[in-house]
Amino acid sequence: LKPIEWRGDRLVLLDQRILPFETRYIEAKTVEDVAHAIRDMAVRGAPAIGITAAFGMVLALVEKTPSNTQEALKTLARAREILSKTRPTAVNLFWALDRMYNKAVELTSSASSVRELRDGLEKEALKIFEEELDAEIKMGLYGAELLEDGDTVLTICNAGGLATGTGLGTATAPIYIASMLGKRVSVIAPETRPWQQGARLTVYELMQNGIRTTLIADTAVGLVMYRRLVDIVMVGADRILLDGHVFNKIGTLNEAVLAHEFGIPFYVLAPTSTIDTRSRVEDVKIEERSPDEVRTVRTAQGSVYVTLKEVAVYNPVFDVTPPKYVTGIITERGVATHPLSINLRKLLNKT
Amino acid sequence: LKPIEWRGDRLVLLDQRILPFETRYIEAKTVEDVAHAIRDMAVRGAPAIGITAAFGMVLALVEKTPSNTQEALKTLARAREILSKTRPTAVNLFWALDRMYNKAVELTSSASSVRELRDGLEKEALKIFEEELDAEIKMGLYGAELLEDGDTVLTICNAGGLATGTGLGTATAPIYIASMLGKRVSVIAPETRPWQQGARLTVYELMQNGIRTTLIADTAVGLVMYRRLVDIVMVGADRILLDGHVFNKIGTLNEAVLAHEFGIPFYVLAPTSTIDTRSRVEDVKIEERSPDEVRTVRTAQGSVYVTLKEVAVYNPVFDVTPPKYVTGIITERGVATHPLSINLRKLLNKT
Repeated sequence: LKPIEWRGDRLVLLDQRILPFETRYIEAKTVEDVAHAIRDMAVRGAPAIGITAAFGMVLALVEKTPSNTQEALKTLARAREILSKTRPTAVNLFWALDRMYNKAVELTSSASSVRELRDGLEKEALKIFEEELDAEIKMGLYGAELLEDGDTVLTICNAGGLATGTGLGTATAPIYIASMLGKRVSVIAPETRPWQQGARLTVYELMQNGIRTTLIADTAVGLVMYRRLVDIVMVGADRILLDGHVFNKIGTLNEAVLAHEFGIPFYVLAPTSTIDTRSRVEDVKIEERSPDEVRTVRTAQGSVYVTLKEVAVYNPVFDVTPPKYVTGIITERGVATHPLSINLRKLLNKT
Repeated sequence: LKPIEWRGDRLVLLDQRILPFETRYIEAKTVEDVAHAIRDMAVRGAPAIGITAAFGMVLALVEKTPSNTQEALKTLARAREILSKTRPTAVNLFWALDRMYNKAVELTSSASSVRELRDGLEKEALKIFEEELDAEIKMGLYGAELLEDGDTVLTICNAGGLATGTGLGTATAPIYIASMLGKRVSVIAPETRPWQQGARLTVYELMQNGIRTTLIADTAVGLVMYRRLVDIVMVGADRILLDGHVFNKIGTLNEAVLAHEFGIPFYVLAPTSTIDTRSRVEDVKIEERSPDEVRTVRTAQGSVYVTLKEVAVYNPVFDVTPPKYVTGIITERGVATHPLSINLRKLLNKT
């Protein structure tokens, strides 16, 4: 599975809008192509967007070669401008664009040609990709140690290779790595309404990678744990507070509380960059999205209504899981267990 | 809301297949009309099917008048045969058909005319309807005492007037009655995948009855309880064991465990006829239905795929909630609280 592939003069992107109904790739050769792919959500998931945008900056110098490095910087500033307007709330997007532009400024002081500048930027974009993959491999190795031959993992949403762009993912990394190491690991993936990332993306990527996968309705998460069809829960995270509160896709709290009640280990996988060292739980606003996401479902024929158009809807994007229900947090620097507030700090201080 | 209405010579049924997209009524004038409505699920919900079938037996003597009461009994035996084949696992269906046929046999010994027999059967069918409604009113009154002005109730699936045919329902009865008594009560209804009875039926009937209703994805049940947007949980039941284990729609266990953890009262509403005095929890097989129910969604355009056709699916119809998570069981004979195994027995011994 290669959601993002750099081919030297173009970016090949797996079109996630039409998954799992069609597997189609998009070629991006210009900044505008990349902007379009991000804006239209052919690429999704914070790390994947960051990586894609970074290569978009390289393409700025590929699509037409500026006459000198000063002109090249102007071209890159315009590219950053265009790319930054694609998804206004994506933190990884701005982080990647700034890193690429700052690298360009740094290179301009020494680079003798636009070609040299372009090669330097290409290296930087590949480095962003590799750093992401490296973190996922480390999380995957820590997580794989917790998996035994024959285990079944319950997850939620898509914290997979599609979301990160590397093909490995965060919550899925231990599953892929354990599987490569010869352990038979199965996955139960809940549909994850309202966006159905479980049914549309997780199921697709796990099956593509030969992992035995069972789809369930979100209503069935309790029963699969009660009946011991699950050995361990592994989920991603959007934001982790220093006291151990985990913000992740709506439905994570359900799994965490049920796992805690039925004595099943519940692990969160995320790079240390996900740890928010400043906010307290009461500071974090739980974002609500359009009621139509709940009133409709995404199908091969587009979005279709499943209820009355006029029904009132509460559609929170994520929920918050108190530290009490979290067995451990797996990062690229190691696994933090209880007391989370102390052990997360220790991980952050590690180098 | 009148899901089932008897008009003396015909039955008017609210077509539940196309709800909530269209409100359309079906007229059933013959046994075959009734059989068709049950078979094709224009009517659904165990009590509603029983009531409909009972009136189907009356229609057997309406569609053409047999020459004498002995002929009428043969006609009724044929009608019972036809109606019993519509939904092979519906216990209420057989119960209602047997009750109607036995009543006919009893009446034949005294009835001097087919007309008299028909009138007696009509009374019996109306009695079945009224007994159901009476039980729901009693459950509703017990349940309404637990509701305070301004309360929000979380439910699941459709344990409403559509499922019982009376318009009042079981889990919805306290809401309707409290509302009639001047208490402002709101409801949060989860979609209830895979069949979406929450999004398609509960939301529809609550809105028709002027109850403030909010639809959520099944993934959001944890957050609404964690954030105290819910004061009490009220659900129906398919089967209740004497030790207090509750079998109900898949997803009930999630709500029960989350409610228990967050200190929110969790009540089950069902007539005492739902109590299974013989089975132990390990005897009850959890029925699984077609994987395609999870692979598809029901829309105004019919069922549409939302994932890969070849993905493996686990699709249990109901789950089991251990007594530990049940605050009380509300029946037409009163409310059983802990210890449930003792107090359910007491209710059953009451007359």
